[in-house]
Amino acid sequence: MQTAILLYEGFTALDAIGPYQTLNPLPDADVVFVAEHAGPVTDDNGTLTVTPAQTLAEVERPDLVVVPGGPPDSVERQMANPAVIDWLRAADAHSTWTASVCTGSLLLAAAGFLKGRRATSHWLALDALKTFGAEPTGERVVFDGKYVTAAGVSSGIDMGLTLAGKIAGDPYAQGIQLMIEYDPQPPYDAGSPEKAPAELVEKFRAEEAAQA
Amino acid sequence: MQTAILLYEGFTALDAIGPYQTLNPLPDADVVFVAEHAGPVTDDNGTLTVTPAQTLAEVERPDLVVVPGGPPDSVERQMANPAVIDWLRAADAHSTWTASVCTGSLLLAAAGFLKGRRATSHWLALDALKTFGAEPTGERVVFDGKYVTAAGVSSGIDMGLTLAGKIAGDPYAQGIQLMIEYDPQPPYDAGSPEKAPAELVEKFRAEEAAQA
Repeated sequence: MQTAILLYEGFTALDAIGPYQTLNPLPDADVVFVAEHAGPVTDDNGTLTVTPAQTLAEVERPDLVVVPGGPPDSVERQMANPAVIDWLRAADAHSTWTASVCTGSLLLAAAGFLKGRRATSHWLALDALKTFGAEPTGERVVFDGKYVTAAGVSSGIDMGLTLAGKIAGDPYAQGIQLMIEYDPQPPYDAGSPEKAPAELVEKFRAEEAAQA
Repeated sequence: MQTAILLYEGFTALDAIGPYQTLNPLPDADVVFVAEHAGPVTDDNGTLTVTPAQTLAEVERPDLVVVPGGPPDSVERQMANPAVIDWLRAADAHSTWTASVCTGSLLLAAAGFLKGRRATSHWLALDALKTFGAEPTGERVVFDGKYVTAAGVSSGIDMGLTLAGKIAGDPYAQGIQLMIEYDPQPPYDAGSPEKAPAELVEKFRAEEAAQA
């Protein structure tokens, strides 16, 4: 089973690494980080430099496609990049699962996959998802047919484990969870706009609006 | 505030990226991935290739040191690597915090930092930690003085948020949690040896023993 994790300039690191760390241990997994061009790709902070194993042209028929998100400007650049959108469409034509984390779902939407489908994204991007005809839900991991979308950044871990269970069975996925010791104990209960202090939610909404 | 995240051949990706994603948003954060040599470093699956921004020699006085773990063979190689151990000792002499995720605590222990200290590691490595005079606890994130150790792989996210709160205050850390939407909803409750099915725990213990 080949899993292709898309990289592009300005991706968010944990969006890619959460699914990677949970899907790579699957039996017979062949996970490749792919990007439009060969050579290093830098994350949204300009701090993490990753070299993809293969280019998009070299990975034509992945069984599972994973698209990480990033800040609005980096995602919008890829939404307008025919090389990436065309590859997503071609890969999706044969994939068993097409998945995204965070604003990666905007790339799936731009490729036309999410029209009329239930989907999710980073909480600040749910309205943008609607403009593509998707039906955003407040859930953390959303399955609609073969399309799997996860909420913001860290939700890719939950998505990866859920997919691992569907692919290799619950006991196998539980084994992955145990080995990455995923027994979360966040020091705060502020991980969603419903749970976080209202002033924080407002602050980030205002910042997002100012950038748009 | 400079944060140095150590990379070495065979590190576990999420061990490094969990703290990175939670500590990088701190005010005035200067986060650098560092390694013994310039040039690409590959993770424990041989799948993720990261190029460090600087070498150990170039980062002499980080305020915060973060050491990810890896499988026994890769960690043992670094425990016996004077370049890494000497750098850890020199960096630790001036650091405000010295932290690890997963079996990264064995590197802190090998450097002599954890003698008589409460600490943690991946659940399969707690006994190894004891051989260095540390007092392993079953907790997910352990503070003892300026030393901060986290349990297996994914616990680096909880550690990063906890440290972020101590460094920049609770509201700031809650903002980080909200932006990475860390509202964990694992599909199973199998993330620790206490919670996972006993046969899985036994299987991994037996595999670990066979490799030792």
